[in-house]
Amino acid sequence: MTTAPNRLPRADIGVYGLGVMGTSLARNLAHHGHEVALFNYTPDLTERFVNDYSHEGLFRPARDIEGFTASLKTPRVVLVMVPAGAATESVVNQLRSVLSPGDIIIDGGNAFYPDTIRREKALRTEGIHFVGMGVSGGEEGALEGPSLMPGGADESYTRIGPLLEDIAAQVDGRPCCAHVGPDGAGHFVKMVHNGIEYADMQVIAEAYDLLRRIGGLSIDEIAEVFRSWRRTELDSYLIDITAEVLDQVDSRTGRPLIDVIVDQAGQKGTGVWSSQTALDHGVPVPAIAEATFARSASSAIAQRTALRNADITPGTAERTPASRAAFVESVRMALYGAKIAAYAQGFHEIATASELNGWNINLAQIARIWRGGCIIRAHFLDDIASAYEDEPALPSLLTAPAFASALEKALPAWRRLAADAILAGVPAPVFASGLAYIDSLRSERLPAALIQGQRDFFGAHGYRRIDDPGTTHHVLWAEERRPEVRQK
Amino acid sequence: MTTAPNRLPRADIGVYGLGVMGTSLARNLAHHGHEVALFNYTPDLTERFVNDYSHEGLFRPARDIEGFTASLKTPRVVLVMVPAGAATESVVNQLRSVLSPGDIIIDGGNAFYPDTIRREKALRTEGIHFVGMGVSGGEEGALEGPSLMPGGADESYTRIGPLLEDIAAQVDGRPCCAHVGPDGAGHFVKMVHNGIEYADMQVIAEAYDLLRRIGGLSIDEIAEVFRSWRRTELDSYLIDITAEVLDQVDSRTGRPLIDVIVDQAGQKGTGVWSSQTALDHGVPVPAIAEATFARSASSAIAQRTALRNADITPGTAERTPASRAAFVESVRMALYGAKIAAYAQGFHEIATASELNGWNINLAQIARIWRGGCIIRAHFLDDIASAYEDEPALPSLLTAPAFASALEKALPAWRRLAADAILAGVPAPVFASGLAYIDSLRSERLPAALIQGQRDFFGAHGYRRIDDPGTTHHVLWAEERRPEVRQK
Repeated sequence: MTTAPNRLPRADIGVYGLGVMGTSLARNLAHHGHEVALFNYTPDLTERFVNDYSHEGLFRPARDIEGFTASLKTPRVVLVMVPAGAATESVVNQLRSVLSPGDIIIDGGNAFYPDTIRREKALRTEGIHFVGMGVSGGEEGALEGPSLMPGGADESYTRIGPLLEDIAAQVDGRPCCAHVGPDGAGHFVKMVHNGIEYADMQVIAEAYDLLRRIGGLSIDEIAEVFRSWRRTELDSYLIDITAEVLDQVDSRTGRPLIDVIVDQAGQKGTGVWSSQTALDHGVPVPAIAEATFARSASSAIAQRTALRNADITPGTAERTPASRAAFVESVRMALYGAKIAAYAQGFHEIATASELNGWNINLAQIARIWRGGCIIRAHFLDDIASAYEDEPALPSLLTAPAFASALEKALPAWRRLAADAILAGVPAPVFASGLAYIDSLRSERLPAALIQGQRDFFGAHGYRRIDDPGTTHHVLWAEERRPEVRQK
Repeated sequence: MTTAPNRLPRADIGVYGLGVMGTSLARNLAHHGHEVALFNYTPDLTERFVNDYSHEGLFRPARDIEGFTASLKTPRVVLVMVPAGAATESVVNQLRSVLSPGDIIIDGGNAFYPDTIRREKALRTEGIHFVGMGVSGGEEGALEGPSLMPGGADESYTRIGPLLEDIAAQVDGRPCCAHVGPDGAGHFVKMVHNGIEYADMQVIAEAYDLLRRIGGLSIDEIAEVFRSWRRTELDSYLIDITAEVLDQVDSRTGRPLIDVIVDQAGQKGTGVWSSQTALDHGVPVPAIAEATFARSASSAIAQRTALRNADITPGTAERTPASRAAFVESVRMALYGAKIAAYAQGFHEIATASELNGWNINLAQIARIWRGGCIIRAHFLDDIASAYEDEPALPSLLTAPAFASALEKALPAWRRLAADAILAGVPAPVFASGLAYIDSLRSERLPAALIQGQRDFFGAHGYRRIDDPGTTHHVLWAEERRPEVRQK
């Protein structure tokens, strides 16, 4: 262990919180030659860190907050890696009382972005920079190179940018880190990243389930299918690890592990927040919401038990398709199409929030910093980056030429598969909702006109006319029923 | 106009806020023989009320808040009918300063229930009762007999119950009003009522669109179909008014009004809140969320314009079904099935919140007070009330014998129709998501197991085993890949 006295202000950065993510980021920083001060609320994790990793670099473990801050070069940079919510609030308040103007606090937890906006504003009045930063990649990514999404003031990025770009994943010689935008922009983008991740995992789960329940493939065969998809547009980390999970054999029973795992999916809140925020902003994100509900439904034990015991008809006989190869290819098409729809929804959510908050987020850059390090990393993101580079104000990813033509190819097979899933009684909520999303947006006329008529009927909410859209009209339904009046 | 001096404390109740809903409720109260004090923040609405309606009953219009409260019998009852949010906050604070212990404030606006919980708690410390009350039925319902969903303390209901039950809609001799539960329970139930209303309107809109775009029926024929459905399980206010809206001819162009209305649906927030709250509570309500997103998608003009101009393939040819009668019947079946699924989700949302908040809500009673007065009123709600009377702890409406057997009948046609919609490229998001919801809950195994494997792989989140569900397990994926460890 390097034992320079704590009190010499030599550390480039301090990491506060030595859980899984904090530990990995601290080691990653040290591997890149940075001196890292360490602090944890309880000393046990600091001791464990020193025991396990002190040989890997220059660390300055501290026993108290004063020793921690005293060991940092000024302006000080503290990376806070503690759970979002009460822990983050308390640590930020503690640091606020010991830091000085010009110092920078980076919150690398999964804070809800309005909290980040509030904290940045409060600390700004004291001259302390507060940077809410999204970190994706899990334990391994944090150690080997995560995707980093820092928000906060431009000024803070000049100081922390080089440090962060150093430890981030690198793709084609470019770091998967960029200044996303002011105040809460970084945490917002990370939240939507996770929402997209929920949808991406769910469409993979639906593909697996259809291959198994309709296609009749064995688990080994499905693993092989996922491996083969690495050579297609689907190539991505999540496809890779799906094959790995399917390969795993349970040592206790000798069965495939997937069949031994309880089929109730957990969640930690970012899928919920993504859906809720999109609802607040009036942005349709059915892929994210359906993926979130699919997890809740899997955990709705009382309801599942009741339904399984009820006498409710299954779908039509679950049949093995005539051509297995054609069926597998149709699942691939559907998966790719549903993935495009999910990402289109996520980017729409980011674009809308950027507009509402004046964040001026560069969408091509977001796609680029997600190419490596993070859970949704994929070559696919190169195509998204190109789409926004070619047309920064693109209203929807669906209509970027590359994606429109991919959808053109995928839609017939995707439709057939989603219809077959419905007929067979195999749930594929995100496959189905992606089609409804595309079909809603491309319909010349929507039955929303009927809904407006109903709303005017019972609530006098008014409606607009296609030949006079600037005025609200109202029919006196309850009286003569025929006349129409101009309301406003 | 009855001109008793304002200062005599003779009014049974005061109505604060004389917009559309306040006016109708004040008249309704007067029609039932109650003396009603009137106040509005600006005197113009009070004057208009007096001009238009003073002959209808005993009203005490007031020019200032002191005159208003002085004209009320003690303990005073004030019904606040102002917009939710800032206006409600300000009126409640104003009333708080002039009312006395034992007095009752009823908030009949659409407040978000956590605000109601907060206000009730604050006013309770001063001995003032605060009752958040859901009011449904629109202008006509408020006048002729609304559905009323008061929350607040039991004690307050002894005073206001008779007054409210008097003016509520009556079905089979029973008022559509009951004490829902403590503090925010009334506003919560109204919020979910509106969420269900969104879903119900959307499934009707989908049925209409499919009858038109796949069935090839004319608007007149569709109106006739909806009228004929009054004689089936679908009989409801929303089905009635759909026929009325479809009957309406635009006087300016001679075209059906439905084709002249701009097809972008508006919303006022309760659908959003219902979805967001269900997400918070981990309750799957895809029907409500998809209906809310369908409105947002209809209003996503930039995206709709882009998609319509893009070269994205439509569905397979939109074909007229072989038998029109069979097709119409399949739409009816699907509409009924999707409606059952939507109501099952809404009641699940209420049951969960009741549990979490200790509200002890009687679900059969909720169904009963929705049978008349409100927007979703329908005979169908009798069946729901019976289902919960027979089994108060029913985990899901889907498995109540009457609904399980209805689904048994509806599912084959519903599946066929949802599949056809997908193939034809006609969006039917709630028809499709209702099937995925049912199929998720009735599946023996869900691919949520794969999601748990993925989460353990990249985030070490752990999973449970079917043969040891009490323990969290974790695979050391990154290392030997085979061994498994017990985590906790």
